[in-house]
Amino acid sequence: MTTTATETGLDELDAILARARSAFDVARHASDEERAGWIERVAADVDAAVDELVAVADEETHLGPVRLRGEVARTTGQLRLFARVVREGSYLEVIVDHADASATPPRPDLRRMLVPLGPVAVYAASNFPFAFSVLGGDTASALAVGCPVVVKAHPGHPRLSRRTAEIATTALREAGAPEGYLALVEGYDAGIALIEHPLVAAASFTGSVAGGRALFDRAAARPDPIPFFGELGSVNPVVVTPAADSARGAELAAGLAASFTSGFGQFCTKPGVVFVPPASTIERELAEAPLEAGRGPLLTDSILRGYLAGTRRLVGVPDVDVVAGGLGEGPEAAPLVVAVDAPTAAEHAGELLEEVFGPVTLLVRYRDGAELASTLERIRGSLTATVHAEPEDDVRELVDRLTRLAGRVLFSGWPTGVAVTWAQHHGGPWPSTTSQHTSVGTTAARRFQRPVVYQDAPAAVLPAALREDNPLGIPRRVDGVLEIPGV
Amino acid sequence: MTTTATETGLDELDAILARARSAFDVARHASDEERAGWIERVAADVDAAVDELVAVADEETHLGPVRLRGEVARTTGQLRLFARVVREGSYLEVIVDHADASATPPRPDLRRMLVPLGPVAVYAASNFPFAFSVLGGDTASALAVGCPVVVKAHPGHPRLSRRTAEIATTALREAGAPEGYLALVEGYDAGIALIEHPLVAAASFTGSVAGGRALFDRAAARPDPIPFFGELGSVNPVVVTPAADSARGAELAAGLAASFTSGFGQFCTKPGVVFVPPASTIERELAEAPLEAGRGPLLTDSILRGYLAGTRRLVGVPDVDVVAGGLGEGPEAAPLVVAVDAPTAAEHAGELLEEVFGPVTLLVRYRDGAELASTLERIRGSLTATVHAEPEDDVRELVDRLTRLAGRVLFSGWPTGVAVTWAQHHGGPWPSTTSQHTSVGTTAARRFQRPVVYQDAPAAVLPAALREDNPLGIPRRVDGVLEIPGV
Repeated sequence: MTTTATETGLDELDAILARARSAFDVARHASDEERAGWIERVAADVDAAVDELVAVADEETHLGPVRLRGEVARTTGQLRLFARVVREGSYLEVIVDHADASATPPRPDLRRMLVPLGPVAVYAASNFPFAFSVLGGDTASALAVGCPVVVKAHPGHPRLSRRTAEIATTALREAGAPEGYLALVEGYDAGIALIEHPLVAAASFTGSVAGGRALFDRAAARPDPIPFFGELGSVNPVVVTPAADSARGAELAAGLAASFTSGFGQFCTKPGVVFVPPASTIERELAEAPLEAGRGPLLTDSILRGYLAGTRRLVGVPDVDVVAGGLGEGPEAAPLVVAVDAPTAAEHAGELLEEVFGPVTLLVRYRDGAELASTLERIRGSLTATVHAEPEDDVRELVDRLTRLAGRVLFSGWPTGVAVTWAQHHGGPWPSTTSQHTSVGTTAARRFQRPVVYQDAPAAVLPAALREDNPLGIPRRVDGVLEIPGV
Repeated sequence: MTTTATETGLDELDAILARARSAFDVARHASDEERAGWIERVAADVDAAVDELVAVADEETHLGPVRLRGEVARTTGQLRLFARVVREGSYLEVIVDHADASATPPRPDLRRMLVPLGPVAVYAASNFPFAFSVLGGDTASALAVGCPVVVKAHPGHPRLSRRTAEIATTALREAGAPEGYLALVEGYDAGIALIEHPLVAAASFTGSVAGGRALFDRAAARPDPIPFFGELGSVNPVVVTPAADSARGAELAAGLAASFTSGFGQFCTKPGVVFVPPASTIERELAEAPLEAGRGPLLTDSILRGYLAGTRRLVGVPDVDVVAGGLGEGPEAAPLVVAVDAPTAAEHAGELLEEVFGPVTLLVRYRDGAELASTLERIRGSLTATVHAEPEDDVRELVDRLTRLAGRVLFSGWPTGVAVTWAQHHGGPWPSTTSQHTSVGTTAARRFQRPVVYQDAPAAVLPAALREDNPLGIPRRVDGVLEIPGV
């Protein structure tokens, strides 16, 4: 099979957006039950095609069938979770304030809910060819709330993107969704034209800081700026206390090795900077660790080039020690563990404390809390921050510091692996994300909605969610008090 | 009394932000009860100083003591409402997912809440010297959730700004809030430096499209872009059906006259474009209406200049008729009603369908639903849209159209007057606002927070809101199900 490069022309893009706009007019009037049914049908049809899809994905990404099969399950599970979210109804954030003629000034009847924004541009990532691509969390959350989606395919897996889109558009059509509710565009120029297209109401992106920043800037520079939900770059600091290193350094070294080489280090939550005590068991164990599982082909040539440049940047800083692995050459990335003392890391933060995408991690040796704190100050916003401590450690101040730095603070685990649940938050201060919203978990739906309030509206024009008798049976706040039907 | 122009120097700005940053470290650890107490104390002290404040405000804004006294009550009521919001606790959006070892892959324990962003820059408006100024809704919502505020004073009321800030900072100090939790800066250069300051975590703005766009662009161009919550410009379309005009044209004309001249037309929700049938009672009645209450001094010389230029732009379009009033000269703005046929309005949308701040409204005569729809298509995003119809009118399609255009759709009323309640939404598509959040009402608190999730955290490090026994007694979603304590 050969891959034919395809570039979506600008006239074709206009036609795709026109169809998306028409689809929006249908979808925003569809019931929650209808939209839930559409995406559940997509999930079912993708699951049914898992063998075919995983085969294509493995050819294009080299991520291996076991990982890819799990990723399909996660992706279809995510679609089904968003179906549950819209049926539950809280995602509409309904608030009803009854009129109060006795107030000064008299208060009107006000009924607020969220409505979908309009067609959403989704820029797919390379490292999760299912879960952050054509049918990833961005697409699932947008389709669930009534927003048509135009996916910009990642050039790293073009055939998989097309096949996934075919299965999904067929499933949507057969389930009764409007024509154009999901579409795929390809090519650099189409991607630029998409973010600037007048009919696009919002955009989401997962990828590099450089790519995300370029799209963010264009979204902000539009005559009508649109929301841009970008997930860019993250070093995901880990802090190991001396007590934890003493108690279970070998176990932590094995856990770290598995985490930073997982998916050949191509996870946005890869632990990239690990604070350890001097002369740690972790460092000693890593020097002997079998890292060969982390050697492999990266997703694209440009990621490989970036990895080689990034690892050279790290080892080029004076006093950086190579603990394990080495600089790779050729088509496969070699795993690498480097180490440096905290003062050097702080001094060379620009070279050392920035993300290098691929199977590398940097150990930062800190002698005391002051060195730890001042080096953490130099780390920019991250998706995650991890603590490995023992019960006798007082980590409250550390946790407070990490909470300012990251959107997920985790304990005694590793940041790779992001559960898709109600409480999940996958986001953090710049540059890890551009917004105050998550890209994983049910609250991701909030990104593609805006509030509307109806004042003194006749019952005949009110959406069902706002009617006095609450026909949808959804949770609402009424006159300041939360009400859950049936409770 | 003379007004001394004051410019905050850049060194002073640095010192103010450093204090705000320190205050943040205290405030984000304060309890909801403590923060509620701080802003309630501010409300009490402002109420106690109402006579003095209203006198200064009237000298600087000419808005009159009755309106200004009402605005003080609204402002302190708003502070008290946000105190209730933080005590109620839903604003933290707590979600708890317990660990599930049986899931594939096993799920960790995840506990999510919102945390404050950091110091917020608030750009005050001129037209509400209390409710959208130093202690307006932006300040109240930020202080309530734990964000220090640095207000950029509006030059239209410098003495009032300083006196309000003095009263508030004294009240905060006496109530136990950290030094620097609220500060005031003045001057154009300080305003620019503020939006670009590394310690500012978010900004809010109420004012013109040009001013808001300039600040939005700077916020987006930062090395670390920050959220910018701007309320810019809005024409607030009103649609009167033929049946409503027949049934109560005279009453509607009186209501419109009162609304568009209220505050000398200097409301962001002023009805600026009113769709009426041809040969309407409304137009005939307005020609005779007493509009003199709308004649008066505008807030600033620059607003007066903008009003004169804007009204000249309107009457300069061919086939625009002057229905009532006229072009003013000198220091007072003259109220003005103009009218045009819908096709001309659509053709000259750039001149006619843009906001003119001040006591002017444009009647657009539409002959049928098609003319109405095609002209509405040319109106940009608005804070409000209003329908005046009779029970026999089927307005569902119209309401759908207006919902796409505006954040508040109201019936049988006028858009000036924005109730501060739980359900209120004051926002809309660009250019009325830059974001998907409100600047009035309790959900405004969401703007200055970001989510954080704790994974497998020991109980000792969890914030009270996330502990298993829910010691704060706040509403939470647990394992996907909303729980309200005591219900």
